[in-house]
Amino acid sequence: MNGPIITLMTDFGWDSPYAAAMKGVILSINPAAKVIDLTHGIPPQDVAHGAYFLAEALPWFPAGSMHVAVVDPEVGSERRLLCFDIDGRRLLTPDNGLVTRLERRGLVREARMLVERRYWRADVSATFHGRDILAPVAAHWGLGVPAADFGPIADDWKRLPLAEPVRRGDSIVGEVAFVDSFGNLLSNIPQEMLPKSKAYEVECRGARPRWVRTYADAPPGELVALLSSGGWVEVAMVNGNACRRLDARIGDEVRLRPAAW
Amino acid sequence: MNGPIITLMTDFGWDSPYAAAMKGVILSINPAAKVIDLTHGIPPQDVAHGAYFLAEALPWFPAGSMHVAVVDPEVGSERRLLCFDIDGRRLLTPDNGLVTRLERRGLVREARMLVERRYWRADVSATFHGRDILAPVAAHWGLGVPAADFGPIADDWKRLPLAEPVRRGDSIVGEVAFVDSFGNLLSNIPQEMLPKSKAYEVECRGARPRWVRTYADAPPGELVALLSSGGWVEVAMVNGNACRRLDARIGDEVRLRPAAW
Amino acid sequence: MNGPIITLMTDFGWDSPYAAAMKGVILSINPAAKVIDLTHGIPPQDVAHGAYFLAEALPWFPAGSMHVAVVDPEVGSERRLLCFDIDGRRLLTPDNGLVTRLERRGLVREARMLVERRYWRADVSATFHGRDILAPVAAHWGLGVPAADFGPIADDWKRLPLAEPVRRGDSIVGEVAFVDSFGNLLSNIPQEMLPKSKAYEVECRGARPRWVRTYADAPPGELVALLSSGGWVEVAMVNGNACRRLDARIGDEVRLRPAAW
Repeated sequence: MNGPIITLMTDFGWDSPYAAAMKGVILSINPAAKVIDLTHGIPPQDVAHGAYFLAEALPWFPAGSMHVAVVDPEVGSERRLLCFDIDGRRLLTPDNGLVTRLERRGLVREARMLVERRYWRADVSATFHGRDILAPVAAHWGLGVPAADFGPIADDWKRLPLAEPVRRGDSIVGEVAFVDSFGNLLSNIPQEMLPKSKAYEVECRGARPRWVRTYADAPPGELVALLSSGGWVEVAMVNGNACRRLDARIGDEVRLRPAAW
Repeated sequence: MNGPIITLMTDFGWDSPYAAAMKGVILSINPAAKVIDLTHGIPPQDVAHGAYFLAEALPWFPAGSMHVAVVDPEVGSERRLLCFDIDGRRLLTPDNGLVTRLERRGLVREARMLVERRYWRADVSATFHGRDILAPVAAHWGLGVPAADFGPIADDWKRLPLAEPVRRGDSIVGEVAFVDSFGNLLSNIPQEMLPKSKAYEVECRGARPRWVRTYADAPPGELVALLSSGGWVEVAMVNGNACRRLDARIGDEVRLRPAAW
Repeated sequence: MNGPIITLMTDFGWDSPYAAAMKGVILSINPAAKVIDLTHGIPPQDVAHGAYFLAEALPWFPAGSMHVAVVDPEVGSERRLLCFDIDGRRLLTPDNGLVTRLERRGLVREARMLVERRYWRADVSATFHGRDILAPVAAHWGLGVPAADFGPIADDWKRLPLAEPVRRGDSIVGEVAFVDSFGNLLSNIPQEMLPKSKAYEVECRGARPRWVRTYADAPPGELVALLSSGGWVEVAMVNGNACRRLDARIGDEVRLRPAAW
């Protein structure tokens, strides 16, 4: 029999004892749990970054997995803690918009408020609900406690006001939504929105990267545009860092239209 | 049946093959082990930092867990290697003071010297006892070898000369003991030492942060003081980095007294 | 029964959702897998660094373990994907030289081309074969699929053109092959190549570090040379960073000869 999969995504930093404490709490309640690090490198308090990460990572996990996401600048305030059903996976998170991009993908089935204190640590601090509430709830879920026992249905929850790409004539105008560790710029323009064409003209910060199928289609150092492995229009520099080259930032405009032949 | 929990805390860096080698050694001896990363980001040779980390992380783990801590500037010298009983958990570490803060919390029950070479790798290098001694001992312990087999009782061990906070009139004078990845300053003043009061006046590097219950009690950018989730007086900047704002360092004075009403 | 050991080494960065996606894919196919992070901190596209890391890490793992290595600047091109037999362990990697140093150690027994698409994800992207091919192949291997089912034998594969140390009179002239997180300089001069002597004169970037058995044999701040725990001639600074002190780089010359008495 396999132990339950419980993943952690936090903004604690990889060098922090806080993530270690959460692992200890989980394993104290359920020593069979398989605790998996997604990342502890979400920039501090950056809920939008966390929301992007969750949407790129969680859909790859199997139904029946549990995911604890802690980016929680409002810890200790009246903000709620929620347990989402992400199409068969479970996500525990503060009610601050971390679920936004998963919801836009149509994956949210249910949300529950965490109110049943018997699944929490007896002493709940004012500043670390990840350790004192989310970790023990995840561990109890792994022991077989159904999500319905953690609290009642939540009818609504907070969403981030994310920009959507828009069509302007034959162009699509979107923006940089994420920068990965290679410096690749991931836009918010999804594959499904692209007009049929063999190639596209892309513009970002004055550059006009060539449309390619994969990085190796162009020589090192060239700026290219392509479909990312996650299904988004991406601007990259072959074997280099497009973000640094273009001095780009989240929110910078990305414009696309079918290439003329 | 669950495999034994074996955690690793090192100063090797996350990008180092040394931590990978330790995982390989453990899993070669005991493929059932659950190897858990606490951190590999202790600053190089910083025993004091490691001692703080251990005291914040280990108490959250269950009895019967094993913890291997490698910050070992004296590797290969005559310094001993020890196996501590941390109130039911096991800790393997060089005898260099890494256990100091756990001991101050009253958690050390026993120490043994690692001398039984049959639980070590056959070839012991002069510079990597984490891989050649500590990892195989941890793995054998996970196979059921009792700690008493690793070597005889150690009557004494090295401690770090850590400053303790002192009372001066109605004030408590302590110092910054740790800076977390958010830039929060964790002092060495424990909750138990605080005089009864609804709020406190705190001073650190000329700043007088407002006493709050949790970060969200003040607007972003404000310096606050509060009780940390670990039970220490903490100076923080809401959604910001108090360490950078105050240009603070380990050892900087933190002063506290009951607030006047 | 223990789940199969599947390790990951990538250049994705620790903060990337890409590593998380690979973990999700593996656990979706085989929830019993023990997924172990070796590192996600290989410098982007740095195949030589990855080759060094693999050679230092993999030999410590047991036979029957599976290792997925993704440093893949040519992803989506015609470059092949291979499954190596590393003396009883399995290594999945693009055919770009990542195996070079393992092969020099005489550990490569067999290579197979990954061509059987039924063990891949149904949709294979042009830019993320780690997730779409290597991760599912590793997971299926963990379920008991023999390597022979993944594809036919590969008679040849790519190697990195690595420098070998040479003898010049009574000297050995090699170079810096790796810099670890302590700033220690690991040369390509192996223990086996050293003439018999109690000590050696070493020269690197004009410095003449003293030959010692271990770091603690010299005072903090002194440059020393010694045999690394991996069996290579190493230049280090006691409790310091030799790389920064000498402003050293991969490829810098390291020269050694027996010490005169």
